Amino acid sequence: MEKLTLIKVGGKIVEEEDTLRKLLNDFSQVEGYKVLVHGGGRSATKLAAQLGIESKMVGGRRITDAETLKVVTMVYGGLVNKNIVAGLQALGVNALGLTGADMNLMRSDKRPVGEVDYGFVGDVKEVNADLLASLIHQGIVPVLAPLTHDKQGHMLNTNADTIAGEAAKALAKHFDVTLMFCFEKKGVLRDENDDESVIPEIDRTAFKLFVEEGVIQGGMIPKLENSFQAIDAGVKEVIITQASEIHLGKGTRVF
Amino acid sequence: MEKLTLIKVGGKIVEEEDTLRKLLNDFSQVEGYKVLVHGGGRSATKLAAQLGIESKMVGGRRITDAETLKVVTMVYGGLVNKNIVAGLQALGVNALGLTGADMNLMRSDKRPVGEVDYGFVGDVKEVNADLLASLIHQGIVPVLAPLTHDKQGHMLNTNADTIAGEAAKALAKHFDVTLMFCFEKKGVLRDENDDESVIPEIDRTAFKLFVEEGVIQGGMIPKLENSFQAIDAGVKEVIITQASEIHLGKGTRVF
Repeated sequence: MEKLTLIKVGGKIVEEEDTLRKLLNDFSQVEGYKVLVHGGGRSATKLAAQLGIESKMVGGRRITDAETLKVVTMVYGGLVNKNIVAGLQALGVNALGLTGADMNLMRSDKRPVGEVDYGFVGDVKEVNADLLASLIHQGIVPVLAPLTHDKQGHMLNTNADTIAGEAAKALAKHFDVTLMFCFEKKGVLRDENDDESVIPEIDRTAFKLFVEEGVIQGGMIPKLENSFQAIDAGVKEVIITQASEIHLGKGTRVF
Repeated sequence: MEKLTLIKVGGKIVEEEDTLRKLLNDFSQVEGYKVLVHGGGRSATKLAAQLGIESKMVGGRRITDAETLKVVTMVYGGLVNKNIVAGLQALGVNALGLTGADMNLMRSDKRPVGEVDYGFVGDVKEVNADLLASLIHQGIVPVLAPLTHDKQGHMLNTNADTIAGEAAKALAKHFDVTLMFCFEKKGVLRDENDDESVIPEIDRTAFKLFVEEGVIQGGMIPKLENSFQAIDAGVKEVIITQASEIHLGKGTRVF
């Protein structure tokens, strides 16, 4: 199978003109088949505030009432997605912006109300990536917004990391997928106070040891657990890196 | 060649929950290959007002400054487009929402500043419909938002009638295209005070006579001239009708 790189970048980078331009330049240099997954939370919060809608977050997740759903549909599916698509087209990358509703790419269930009512938030149930894979083979570069639908007529707000993981797993039937998560550090650090102490490779055995020794802790534990879960589901490798290094093959390789 | 129906509906119908639901039901009953082109002007004006941005129109066209461009990108490319896509998916129609930037479908030039500076408004220069035609053959139903790009990184606001006409002409290489323009009347009327006086068919000879006799006048003249221009460019027929009759084959047939 041919190689495909699926890169997830957070909101901040794609929401400022300078960092977006650098990211798109770097992304255009990534060789072979590729997919970009983006966030857009800061712009959503900003637009919501301008419209007098309060942004409520629980555990980093946005409570999405009907008005907030309109805001994220406009910001993620419209503003951020189309700015990225137009920017990539200018660099000769044949981008196609998509939400989970388009081509029924990702169907979700509205998250059941538990201790928290997240509102119109989707948990992905079904990914239809065959047509997407065929488009990628024809040179299309999908740009995925963090939105899905319930196939009953409603858009649903969906975490961008989840979109990236689910798309990577579904595309693993068609490609050797490298899933790349960008965050603010250069990779998983051996010493959180030393930005250069990147651990180059982590397999499951090393992960257990690092956790036992307290080298890996906090939010990095679920991030790595999700990475191993993607690998169990057929993704070839996960790279945790900084957005500025996506075209350099650096960071922490999880396999 | 196989038949394709390309239907353009104005903003009002797709911007209200009830009329949108009826439209999507009717559209889902249109047989064969199809494409939907939508507007969204009222929602754009509403969002602009909420954000304190004044909507300036000249001859029915929106003056699109940088802030207004963000609004229309959000509303046309995000809110309206994705609501239609999700609604069609619920009806089993495999919709795919697109702007002209996606897959470089429509490249425009920013309109030169003349007597009026329209701002970020695009005049279509190039339509790349081959991949779109291939997707349609695979069962995809494109939903086109009235936005294009300049292939230099900028989205451009573009009239929905123009998007429909240009898409129809480009798709005429691949399909026998019926281009359907929906407006508030049941078709071209022989007597503007009698909504039932629909002229069933108009060819170029009849058009000249109707204009000479004063039966056809005002805004209907450029609408029909555009229709004949589409036919000269390979579109098989143009139907001018009411949104509620798109699945019934009624209205005025221009050929």
